[in-house]
This record gives sequence, C-alpha cells and structure tokens, in this order.
Amino acid sequence: MTHVPYDLYGARTGNSIRVAIAFEEAGLPYTVRLVDLRQGEHQSAEFMALNPSGKVPVIVDRSRGPEHAPLVLTQSNAILYHLADLAPEILLGSREWRARAHERFFFFLTDVILPSHAAFWLRTEATANVARKILNDRAMHAIGLAERFASESAFLGGDRFGLADIAAVTIVNTYERELPWNTLPALRRWYEAAMARPSVVRGMRAFDV
Amino acid sequence: MTHVPYDLYGARTGNSIRVAIAFEEAGLPYTVRLVDLRQGEHQSAEFMALNPSGKVPVIVDRSRGPEHAPLVLTQSNAILYHLADLAPEILLGSREWRARAHERFFFFLTDVILPSHAAFWLRTEATANVARKILNDRAMHAIGLAERFASESAFLGGDRFGLADIAAVTIVNTYERELPWNTLPALRRWYEAAMARPSVVRGMRAFDV
Ligand SMILES: N[C@@H](CCC(=O)N[C@@H](CS)C(=O)NCC(=O)O)C(=O)O
Ligand SMILES: N[C@@H](CCC(=O)N[C@@H](CS)C(=O)NCC(=O)O)C(=O)O
Repeated sequence: MTHVPYDLYGARTGNSIRVAIAFEEAGLPYTVRLVDLRQGEHQSAEFMALNPSGKVPVIVDRSRGPEHAPLVLTQSNAILYHLADLAPEILLGSREWRARAHERFFFFLTDVILPSHAAFWLRTEATANVARKILNDRAMHAIGLAERFASESAFLGGDRFGLADIAAVTIVNTYERELPWNTLPALRRWYEAAMARPSVVRGMRAFDV
Repeated sequence: MTHVPYDLYGARTGNSIRVAIAFEEAGLPYTVRLVDLRQGEHQSAEFMALNPSGKVPVIVDRSRGPEHAPLVLTQSNAILYHLADLAPEILLGSREWRARAHERFFFFLTDVILPSHAAFWLRTEATANVARKILNDRAMHAIGLAERFASESAFLGGDRFGLADIAAVTIVNTYERELPWNTLPALRRWYEAAMARPSVVRGMRAFDV
C-alpha cells in the first residue's frame, strides 16, 4: 500500500476542479475527499475542524513526512501557488516565462473569474439582475481579450500548459455557450486542446460521483 | 547618476499603491510614472503602446541589463508575485510560512478585494444599489474573519510583513470608517502598525502629486 501524501477536499465547482487539474498536471498523487455542499457537509463539525470558514477546496499536505504536522491549506489559488512552489517548471513554465505566467494567471483570476463569482453571489437577489448582467458581460469581454494571448504563445501563460491555462479552462467552460467563438479562432484552438488534455479531463471529473 | 531599473506606471488607487508598497518593502529602486486617469492618459497612444488594455499599474523591468529587452508587465498581483520571485524571503516570509503567505494573500485578494472591486464596477448603475450593498457587506464580513489571522501570528501571512499584509492594508483602509473596530482588537493593532510602517507610508503617497 502506497501512502498518498495529499488529500483534496472539494466539490464539483471551478475552485475545486482547478486544484484537481493542477495536481494532475504536476503528477502529484492525491486522494479526492468529496464534500457534499448540497447536504451541507461543509458545515459539519468534522469539516469545520479542518476549515473554520466552511469552504472548499482544502488540501491536507503530509508530504513533509510523519515527523511534521500536516499542512492544512485553504484558498484554491493559494493551493495552486503552493503546488507551483513544489513543481514550478511544470505549473509556471521556464524561468524566462515566469512573469508572464503570473500575469496571465492573475488576468483570469481578477478580470474573468472575479466578476463571474461576484455575479454568482447575487444569484438569489431578484433585483440584482442588472448587476449580474454587468458582471457577466465584463467577464465575457475579458475572455475575448485572451484571444491575443492564445495567438502569441503555445499556451496562455507561455511555453507550457500551466497556472494561467488552469485558471482559464474552467471559466471559459462556464461561458462556452455564450462566447462569440467565430471571433476567437486562436482561443478556440487553445480551448479544444486544453479540454482534451488528460489532466483536464481527469480533473474536470475528479468530483463526479 | 544611478540607473533605476524599474518604472512603475500607476495612479492613486489600491492596485497601484499595493505595488508601490511592495517595491518599498523589497527595497527595490523604482521610478514613479504617474498616469492621470481623470485626464484619460491611460487611453493615450503612448500608454496604450505599453499596455494595450489601457490599465494601470504597469511596470517596466530593465533589471536584466541592456542586452535584454525590458520586461513590460501588467496586472498588479502578477507584479507582486514577480517582485516576490526577486525577493521571496522579504515578500513571502521564510519557507516554513510560504504556503500560509499564499493563503492569506489570496484570502484578501479573492474574498475581500474582489467583491469590493465588483461593487465599484456597479457604481454608475442606480438600479444596482442592492447588489453593491451585498458585495460591500461581503467584503467587510471577510475583513472581520481576518481578526483570527491577526491574533495568530505577528503579521497576517506569517512571521514577517509580506504580500498578505500588502493586500490587506489598502483594502482595510478603504473600509476603515465602516468596520466594527471594537470587535477587532488584534486587527486594529495590526492595522495601526501596518499604516505606520515606512514602506506603507511611502507607498500610500507614491502617486500623490
Ligand atoms: N476564495 C476561496 C473561495 C472558496 C469558496 O467560496 N468555495 C465555495 C465552493 S466554490 C464553497 O465552499 N461554498 C460554501 C459556502 O460558502 O458556504 C477559494 O478560492 O478557495
Ligand atoms: N486586474 C488588474 C486591474 C487593473 C485596473 O482595472 N486598473 C484600473 C485602476 S485601479 C484602471 O486602470 N482603470 C482604467 C480603465 O479601466 O480604463 C490589475 O490588478 O492590475
């Protein structure tokens, strides 16, 4: 029996799936611990002991061995950067491209994922329809700007598939049906290749039951 | 005449100020290039040649010497991580604390700054009042959660002032008058110390004219 040093607590949402893709891409062995948000499992005493804010994803990292306390880490993006500290060449590309990899990752995080999440937070407020549309349009407009990234280099953050591509793939997937694909040929090529990538295929399904 | 290897194009907003604080904290010499957003200078041909998306902050990094093309980098958070690549011990703390420094940085970025920015984007839409309030309340609620970070370690991300503190200080400053300070004694202590820090004092004023 081999000991798997990483547990990934998560659910079938972008935040958790991006982390699963990063584990797959880095080739680090991890055990999926499904947290059933619909059943409120993220608010159980057991889960709250792990993450007092009751949110997924969370990882438990025992890779430093039994003589160290396991590292319990929250925040999907912090987990991505923690994995990038463990496998920088894989997740952030060669040193030459590193700054660009950061730039593109944060472009997707703050200019695309951010307004999209904000729109989602307003979902239960009927009067916030206008606001939701503004925020969703903003996210889709920014995705359009990424056509340039897709035509400049093999991957969105540089010379290899990495954090920027991981941030992009789940959120582009969310807006897939609404995007003006005929104006985005390079991004379309990138998206089809990304969706066919084994790490993405496996990561996207990591929380399927 | 000494050659200053970094130019920082920015304006008096959180995104630019955080980068100025990071330069100050890391002790890297930089020249401030004020971009007058009210005069539309960010849409001038000259600035758009630097950043086609017409946004600040942008840095021009000539630190690799005249034999290399200068690196033009956008995205405030990518610039923070780029500076952290140059000065990791300073901006992300000791290796022991690195994962925690990422966690706390992304907590402030995605759980506090993110809803706050989304609320700001809705500012011109009168009908989006409800939405703005939801998002601002969300940001302030999350700031309250940071009381725990402030009571656990000397700084918000660990054993030294770093990216998490930089992300936190400008956004806490934005909500300063509305926060329930009597319930946040540790955060208050942290905030007062942070605001008195020379790097923060200088960074906060970097774009004052
Ligand atoms: N900024 C956090 C957000 C985590 C988050 O909001 N996760 C959602 C699922 S995507 C969740 O657990 N929601 C349950 C709740 O908020 O009660 C991250 O990136 O990990
Ligand atoms: N995600 C970007 C956002 C940059 C941004 O929106 N900057 C604002 C000032 S804080 C700006 O330049 N606005 C002018 C515009 O959008 O036209 C970053 O973090 O740098």
